[in-house]
Amino acid sequence: MPVFHKNSARVRDEERARLIWLLTTDKAITSALTGKLTLAEQYDEGRLADDIAEVGALVAHLPAPDLADTLEALPSEERHALWGLVDNDKRGKVLHEASESVWDDLIEGMSDKALIDALEGLDIDEKIYLVQHLPRNLTGRLLTTLPPGERARVRQVMNYQQDSVGAIMEFEVITIRPAVTLGAVQRYLRRLGKMPENTDKLFVTDRNQVLVGELSLQTILLHPASRLVSDMMDSAPVTFHPQEDPEKVARTFERDNLLSAGVVDDAGKLLGRLTIDEIVDVVYEETDNDIRQMSGLSNEEDVFAPIGKAVKTRWAWLAVNLCTAFIASRVIDGFEDTIAKLVALASLMPIVAGIGGNTGNQTITMIVRALALQHIQPGNFSFLILREMGVALINGLVWGGIMGLVTWGLYHDPALGAVMMLAMVLNLLVASLMGVLIPMVMLRLGRDPAVGSSVLITAITDTGGFFIFLGLATLFLI
Amino acid sequence: MPVFHKNSARVRDEERARLIWLLTTDKAITSALTGKLTLAEQYDEGRLADDIAEVGALVAHLPAPDLADTLEALPSEERHALWGLVDNDKRGKVLHEASESVWDDLIEGMSDKALIDALEGLDIDEKIYLVQHLPRNLTGRLLTTLPPGERARVRQVMNYQQDSVGAIMEFEVITIRPAVTLGAVQRYLRRLGKMPENTDKLFVTDRNQVLVGELSLQTILLHPASRLVSDMMDSAPVTFHPQEDPEKVARTFERDNLLSAGVVDDAGKLLGRLTIDEIVDVVYEETDNDIRQMSGLSNEEDVFAPIGKAVKTRWAWLAVNLCTAFIASRVIDGFEDTIAKLVALASLMPIVAGIGGNTGNQTITMIVRALALQHIQPGNFSFLILREMGVALINGLVWGGIMGLVTWGLYHDPALGAVMMLAMVLNLLVASLMGVLIPMVMLRLGRDPAVGSSVLITAITDTGGFFIFLGLATLFLI
Repeated sequence: MPVFHKNSARVRDEERARLIWLLTTDKAITSALTGKLTLAEQYDEGRLADDIAEVGALVAHLPAPDLADTLEALPSEERHALWGLVDNDKRGKVLHEASESVWDDLIEGMSDKALIDALEGLDIDEKIYLVQHLPRNLTGRLLTTLPPGERARVRQVMNYQQDSVGAIMEFEVITIRPAVTLGAVQRYLRRLGKMPENTDKLFVTDRNQVLVGELSLQTILLHPASRLVSDMMDSAPVTFHPQEDPEKVARTFERDNLLSAGVVDDAGKLLGRLTIDEIVDVVYEETDNDIRQMSGLSNEEDVFAPIGKAVKTRWAWLAVNLCTAFIASRVIDGFEDTIAKLVALASLMPIVAGIGGNTGNQTITMIVRALALQHIQPGNFSFLILREMGVALINGLVWGGIMGLVTWGLYHDPALGAVMMLAMVLNLLVASLMGVLIPMVMLRLGRDPAVGSSVLITAITDTGGFFIFLGLATLFLI
Repeated sequence: MPVFHKNSARVRDEERARLIWLLTTDKAITSALTGKLTLAEQYDEGRLADDIAEVGALVAHLPAPDLADTLEALPSEERHALWGLVDNDKRGKVLHEASESVWDDLIEGMSDKALIDALEGLDIDEKIYLVQHLPRNLTGRLLTTLPPGERARVRQVMNYQQDSVGAIMEFEVITIRPAVTLGAVQRYLRRLGKMPENTDKLFVTDRNQVLVGELSLQTILLHPASRLVSDMMDSAPVTFHPQEDPEKVARTFERDNLLSAGVVDDAGKLLGRLTIDEIVDVVYEETDNDIRQMSGLSNEEDVFAPIGKAVKTRWAWLAVNLCTAFIASRVIDGFEDTIAKLVALASLMPIVAGIGGNTGNQTITMIVRALALQHIQPGNFSFLILREMGVALINGLVWGGIMGLVTWGLYHDPALGAVMMLAMVLNLLVASLMGVLIPMVMLRLGRDPAVGSSVLITAITDTGGFFIFLGLATLFLI
C-alpha cells in the first residue's frame, strides 16, 4: 500500500468515512445529539461520551465541502444530528457546497433570520445562488441586507433563467483599461489586495464596459512592467452570452481548456465571468441527471431520503411503466386462442421482447450520448439510422438463427423455429429504428432526450415483440 | 434570439456543423477528396469545386479541438477524407484532442515515421500520453527522438498503471525555493519567459525536491516584492499520490475547487502535477463510461464506427442477454401445464416481470451513482437495504393492489387478482434487494459496479417475476 502525504485528500476521505460510521452504527449518538436521550441515559452508555467527543472533533476539523458530502451520505435523522454540530459561520459554506437533495432537511429547523445570518460569510455570488435555489423564498430578506448599489445587480441576475449561463455566472470580476502598463496593473492589484477566487485572468474593457480583451496573470508575471496591456492582451477571447446553455458551454471549456471566460451581452458589454469550478459542477450534474433520467429517476431523489419522499418522487414513472406493461399484456391477451393452441409460444415470447429491449436500450444510450456531445448533425442522421439497422439485421440473423435452431431442437417444430428467427430479426429492427428516432423526435419537440427514454423504448420493444411473434405464429402456425 | 459576440464559441459550433453537413450530404466531396472521382468527373459537378474550397477553408480555420470533434462526428469514409486535409503540424494536436474511438481510423494510413513527425509540435506530456494510448506501439521510436536526459523520465511515467494519477500527471512544473523573495521569483519567471499551460501556482521544494508548499500566481501579484516565499506560501497544500484513482481525485478537485495540485511520492518528493483540464476529461470519461456500461456498451463503441465493428463490440452482451432470456423462458416452460389450464397467466406475467425490472433498474442506478460519489459507507448499508425494500413494499401494495383489482375486474376471478398482487409485491422486494446487493457485491469483488448491471438486474427480475407469478398461480389457482 502506498503511504500518503500528510495533507493528502485521502486523510479527509478517511475522516468522512469515520464520521459516517460513528453516526450510523451507534444510534445512541444521534439520540444524544438530538436530545432524545436524557443525561442519565447517556451516562449509562460507556463509550458514548468518547464517541460524541470524536464526532465533535471531526466536525470541527473537516472543511465545509467535506461536511456537505458527509451530510449527503447520512439518513435524515443522523443528518439533523450532525447539522446541529456545524458552526454557524461554516453553515453558509456547507449549504453552498451541498446538493439540492439535502437542502430541505438542513434548513427545516432554521428560521429565515438564522438562514440569512448563516449566509453572512459568503460572497455575493454564492448568496444569490443559494437564495435563488433554496426551497424557501428569501429574496426579499436578502435584498434588505444588501447595500442599495448591489440590489439592482442582484435583481438583474435573478431575471436570468435558472438553467442559463446568466444564472451561474459570477459578477465579481477585475477589469482594467487597455492603455495602461503591466506595471500599473500590478500596482493596482497590490492596492486591491485580493482577487475573486479562481481568477486566472483580468478583463480589459473600454470606457463603455465593452470587453476588448483579456490579460492572463501569467502574462503580467512573464513580461516587463513597461509593456502596454493593449499590446499584451488576448484581443479575441472566447466569450459566452448569458442566455447560452451551461451544458454546451461546459463542452467548450473542455474543448479549449479554459479556466474562466467572460460573459458579454449583445452589445459586447462585460456582465460577469464563468469559472471552471462552476463548470465542473455543471458537468457532474449533467451526467448525473442523464443517468438518472434515462431510468426515470427524479433529479431530486436522494439515496438517503426517507421512504415517503422516495415513494413520491418515483410514483409517476412507475405508473407510466405499469400502463405500458398493461398495454403489452392486452396485446398478448388478443392472441389468447393462439397461445391456448400452442403453449410453447408463452415461454418463447419473452425472449423476443427481451432481446429487443436490450438492443433498443443500447442504441438509445448511444444516441443520447452522441446528442449531448453534439456529434449528431442533420447531415449524418440517415447514416445513423442505416447503421443501427444494419447492426440489428446482422445480430438478428445470427442470434435469431441460433435461437431458431434451438427452438426447432427443443420443440421438434421447424416452422416454430422459423417464426422465432423472423420475429427476432423484425423486433431488433424495430428496436434500433426506435432507439434512433425517439431521442431525435424528443429533441425536435424541445424536450430532453434522456428523460425516461429507457422506459419508453422498453415499452415499444415489449409490445412490438409480443405482437410480432404472436402475430407471425397466428399467421403461419395455427 | 440573442446576438452572439464575434468570438463566441457559438460561431465555431456553427462552422463545425457546416463542415459535417457539407461532407455528409454530398458524397461527391468525399469521393473527390479521396481521389475516387477523376478530374473530368469533378468538372461535371457544378458546385463541387465551391464546396471543396469551403471545406478546405473551414479545416484551415477551425482550431485543433474543433477538428477533433468534427472527426468524431463523421462516418469512417468522410473521416478519412477530412483527415487528409488537416495540416501535418496540426495533426498531433488533433490526435491528442480526439477520443480513442477514432484513433484507429485516423492513423490507419500513416506510417510510424509520419506519426512521430505529427507529434513533433506537442509538449512532452502530450507525446507520452499519445504514445501510451495509440493503438500502435511507438514507444521505441519516440524514445529515440528524445534527448537522453528525458528518456529516463518518460520510462518512469510509463511504468504507472494506465488508470492511475501517475499516468495522467504532467511533469512540466515550475519549482522555486522557500528562502527567496517574491521579487526574485518574478525575475526568475521573466527569465523563463513561459509557463506550462494552466499554471496557477508554483511549487516550493527543498533541496531534496521534497514539496514544502505552494505559491499561487495571485499571491505573487498581490503582495510586495520584498516578501519571502516561505512567509507567503500555502504550507499545507492538497497533494496526491501517483497510485491514486483519478476518479476519486476528480471528486477532490470538485470538492476543493482546485485548479492544479502536486503529485508527490511516499517520501513527499514532487513528481509532477495534475491540472483541472485533465480532471475535466476524467469526469467526462467516467460518467460517459458509467452510462455506457450500465447498458452493456463497450467504451470503444463509436456512433460512427462501421457496422462490422459495432457488431463485434456488442455481441458479448447480446449473448449474455440471450442466455438470461433463455433461462427465463425455461422457467415459463416448466409451468406449461399451468398456463395451458389458465391462458390468462400468459398475458399477465410480463406485467409482474416488467414492473420488477423498472424498480430494479431505478434502485441499481441510484446505488451505482451513490457509490461513485462515495456516499455509501459500511455504516449506512443496512439503512439503504431497508429503505429500498420499504419503498418497494409500499409501491408493491399500492400498484399491486390496483393491478389486482384490474385483473379481478377483467377476468372476474378474485383469486387471480390476489395472486397478481402478491406476485407484484414479492417481485418488487426481490428487485430492490438485488438492486442494492448486486453493485455492492461487485464492488466487494473488486469489479466496476456499473458494468452490465442493468442487464443483470433485468435478468433476475424477469426470471424471478415469472417464477413467483406462475409458482403462486400453480399453488393457489390450479
